[in-house]
Amino acid sequence: MTHIRTSALKIPVDIAQYIFTRLHQMGIRSIHGVPGDSNLASLDYLPNAGLKWVGNVNELNAGYAADGYARVKGISALITTFGVGELSAVNAIAGAYAENVPIVHIVGTPSRISQQEGLILHATLGNGKYNIFSDMYRQISCAIGELRDPSVAATVIDHTLQQCWLKSQPVYISLPTDMVKQKIEGENLNTPIDLKHGVNDAAEEDDVVGVILNRLVAAKTPIILVDGGARRSQMLETVHLLINKTRLPVFVTPMGKGAVDETDENYGGLYAGDGSQPEVQKRVESSDLVLMIGPVKSDINTAGFSSKITQQKVIEFYGTHIRVGYSSYIGIKMRDVLRRISNQVDLSKLPVHTNPAPKIVKEHNDGSPNITHTWFWSKVSSFLKANDIVITETGSPSFGILDTKFPKGVCTLSQILWGSIGYSVGACQGAALAARDSGDEDRRILLFVGDGSFQLTCQEISTIIRLGLKPIIFIICNEGYTTERFIHGMHASYNNIQPWLFKNIIKAFGAKEGFYKSYQVKSKDGVTKLFEDKEFNECNVLQLVELHMPKDDAPRALRVIAQALGK
Amino acid sequence: MTHIRTSALKIPVDIAQYIFTRLHQMGIRSIHGVPGDSNLASLDYLPNAGLKWVGNVNELNAGYAADGYARVKGISALITTFGVGELSAVNAIAGAYAENVPIVHIVGTPSRISQQEGLILHATLGNGKYNIFSDMYRQISCAIGELRDPSVAATVIDHTLQQCWLKSQPVYISLPTDMVKQKIEGENLNTPIDLKHGVNDAAEEDDVVGVILNRLVAAKTPIILVDGGARRSQMLETVHLLINKTRLPVFVTPMGKGAVDETDENYGGLYAGDGSQPEVQKRVESSDLVLMIGPVKSDINTAGFSSKITQQKVIEFYGTHIRVGYSSYIGIKMRDVLRRISNQVDLSKLPVHTNPAPKIVKEHNDGSPNITHTWFWSKVSSFLKANDIVITETGSPSFGILDTKFPKGVCTLSQILWGSIGYSVGACQGAALAARDSGDEDRRILLFVGDGSFQLTCQEISTIIRLGLKPIIFIICNEGYTTERFIHGMHASYNNIQPWLFKNIIKAFGAKEGFYKSYQVKSKDGVTKLFEDKEFNECNVLQLVELHMPKDDAPRALRVIAQALGK
Repeated sequence: MTHIRTSALKIPVDIAQYIFTRLHQMGIRSIHGVPGDSNLASLDYLPNAGLKWVGNVNELNAGYAADGYARVKGISALITTFGVGELSAVNAIAGAYAENVPIVHIVGTPSRISQQEGLILHATLGNGKYNIFSDMYRQISCAIGELRDPSVAATVIDHTLQQCWLKSQPVYISLPTDMVKQKIEGENLNTPIDLKHGVNDAAEEDDVVGVILNRLVAAKTPIILVDGGARRSQMLETVHLLINKTRLPVFVTPMGKGAVDETDENYGGLYAGDGSQPEVQKRVESSDLVLMIGPVKSDINTAGFSSKITQQKVIEFYGTHIRVGYSSYIGIKMRDVLRRISNQVDLSKLPVHTNPAPKIVKEHNDGSPNITHTWFWSKVSSFLKANDIVITETGSPSFGILDTKFPKGVCTLSQILWGSIGYSVGACQGAALAARDSGDEDRRILLFVGDGSFQLTCQEISTIIRLGLKPIIFIICNEGYTTERFIHGMHASYNNIQPWLFKNIIKAFGAKEGFYKSYQVKSKDGVTKLFEDKEFNECNVLQLVELHMPKDDAPRALRVIAQALGK
Repeated sequence: MTHIRTSALKIPVDIAQYIFTRLHQMGIRSIHGVPGDSNLASLDYLPNAGLKWVGNVNELNAGYAADGYARVKGISALITTFGVGELSAVNAIAGAYAENVPIVHIVGTPSRISQQEGLILHATLGNGKYNIFSDMYRQISCAIGELRDPSVAATVIDHTLQQCWLKSQPVYISLPTDMVKQKIEGENLNTPIDLKHGVNDAAEEDDVVGVILNRLVAAKTPIILVDGGARRSQMLETVHLLINKTRLPVFVTPMGKGAVDETDENYGGLYAGDGSQPEVQKRVESSDLVLMIGPVKSDINTAGFSSKITQQKVIEFYGTHIRVGYSSYIGIKMRDVLRRISNQVDLSKLPVHTNPAPKIVKEHNDGSPNITHTWFWSKVSSFLKANDIVITETGSPSFGILDTKFPKGVCTLSQILWGSIGYSVGACQGAALAARDSGDEDRRILLFVGDGSFQLTCQEISTIIRLGLKPIIFIICNEGYTTERFIHGMHASYNNIQPWLFKNIIKAFGAKEGFYKSYQVKSKDGVTKLFEDKEFNECNVLQLVELHMPKDDAPRALRVIAQALGK
């Protein structure tokens, strides 16, 4: 075992203390996770580092919550225990990897000596192999930091955390129990980790900026299409600069929704191929130059690959390269390119576009008292307030929300690419806590989740209660897996679920009388009244709304996409 | 894409139909899992194959339930969907791999063409790679069957299922959506898969049998120690043959508990090093020949590696080899060796042992009304009935149960090696369903679970309700993670949990009045009365018992082992 002579250190700091101090420096205030025997000792260090322990109900939920926290606060951390703990979080971390969410996952592992001797400990496969679980994580983490040697631990920690931030993806740090208290040099902590993004090769950047500027001023109907890659917290500012400087018409994809100000007069609507409103689809597909910011050409995001934008008319901006038509500029990151275009473009040569007729959100009342998706989601547009945080579960909520128009500053969380059901309940806890940790306790937290999805991770409500968070949780009650029904098996029993008494759940999970409210809403009138209710809007307590909707109804976009997926 | 000309087939059968027919032939009657778009089409085939769909609440619970089902029924199956579904089950399958539980895990994947073209579908990492998740499973499955080519599909399926049975570990079968309906030769289905275990090399087997027989008749105080590897359903019969023929004193380890008849007069008790009752420890460690059947020398199973049995006095029997003292007979499987020893040993030369004084189970009443672990678990011994199925969660239940004495035919489920908390709630559902599927609806199903562990997977109660299963669920309410407290942080807040109203949970999960009962028990008297209650013992409905116990109390064995783990 390597040790460092403590007397050789200027400011000796325990490794656990070092890590947690770094996490605090990066903006994290609460840590998600579940205790387990291999991480207990490290948890003792949290309070001194200014960090609060969440203590989730299980590791999958903790992972989802960490994802939600990171999407609001910029980055998050998750602590699990070796084997039995970390493996329950694999799905959540894979989702964060796919969707570019930076999570620092710290796994408490058995001591180095146990690992070296291949002891048959609990939470191992009994075969003496200790690298199997970290190898699984290697595929879904942008960096792995294994803390085995105190003499390089600080470097490994700093590098791993830096990668998490710069690549905006999860990292994995393994912390053996016998390393927790090892002393390392704490003087480094006086210098924050360098989180500056690297610069591009100057000549190549000059070249591509020139090409793009030429294309831009030559175009007659250029537009900006904001996609998933623009959503990373570190990118949004640059994207807004481009929009505000150029004043070009702006559209968003499903993954881009929430990234731009939809009240701005240059906002044109949501584009997703055949899943778009017809007038939006026409405007986007007839444009002669589409600046795609952070494209994610996935099935759902393109409504079943139904985008019909000619590649020659496209410039794609990625975190790792730029693609102009068919030619790629490998290694040229979009950040500085976008900034230079924003600042250098000859605005007088840009077309003054006629504002796209903003999509008027209509409340399609079909005359029946039943709450239908078309009616409900248009109604949601008027219910939303500036700066709301809106979490939509994969399924009817994530499709329904696409037809809403957002007030300024609304932030959305959804897993359009990964699409793991159950995600939203954990993410809601994390997002609400992140808002509070940011001093934004006044932001409303709105979760829309289907009854089937809610069941997977329901117990995260317990953590929401424990932390005193106050989201409004809308559960769409339609007796099962709606998205699956529209894909295959509309009447198959495997798409049904056990009916729950959702309003009883909160009490069962320990909420005290007076600290929560629950509602059952079964009609359009009921929704209208609730949305107008002053107390409901004030969000002084946790609120749960059962929204009863017909089993065979679905949002428009879901029908379009389910049909494509069914093929 | 490879297709088979249907006209070339004698009995054309769809691939999904083929797989499910095989599963039925192997004894499976219910399939666990969660629907998802990549497995929906296959689910249509279940009824025709005589299989029922469980429809669990989430994939981790489904995996735990499949584990419980297999431990009772011999084998089980689990169906999940690509990426987002299968990754939530990783922990459950890793546990089954560690603990030698045969589960056939079928994953519905995107079509072959989508995979070949690297389409960016939902539930992928967005990088076009389709092998990442199956690669993760490669480390925790004893065989992987990827169904890509109809012309070899039947062979791949049969081989994979055979390995699952013979190696008694999970296997992974990926079924692309476009393969579900592909026709393959169904004539094979008339011949069941060959599930016979291979034979040993005759000369080597003769040799080792001779060595063992000589050692056996020369020994003065030989004993049998039954361990985890004897628990596989295919091994028990052989182990019982050995016990009944030789009439040697029999002991079990924690992982072996439940494998032998504890009412038999040659039963000597439970041995786990320093975790044993002193008289048991003395008898085992002073024996001059210990026949260890299926040893698992893990930390918990040996009470922190505290076994003190001299290796020269040991013969170890494994599924893959035999070890006599320090010399190993690689490749010689225990099955036939044990049978030959049972049949060939000269019984007249075996010592007629004095029966070990069977451990008298005492109800240690400390005079206080509080329910303490020592008192409770001794009380459980008298509550248990023949053929009960007892599921104990990792933690105080899995340690507490070690101090009970079982009536005949009691079957236990516990994760002594893997130890993932939350396991038992899912396993309880699976075990109860397996008993019903076996026509053993009269067997009582008893789950003992701590309040902290219960929270991880609580919603599997919903499936129990949905299926009309009738276990008794004892929730030990002591405000948090007891095992963790005894390892580290006795008073640390991170070992606390949100208090739940457990009795409200069942109603919230949709149980109808009259179809369940719940109890709150806070005193020894309360336990005694409940255990004597006729209706309670009849198990006509689902029953949940809150057992309130002091926060700082723990079973004896847990204290011993936690101390060892803390080091």
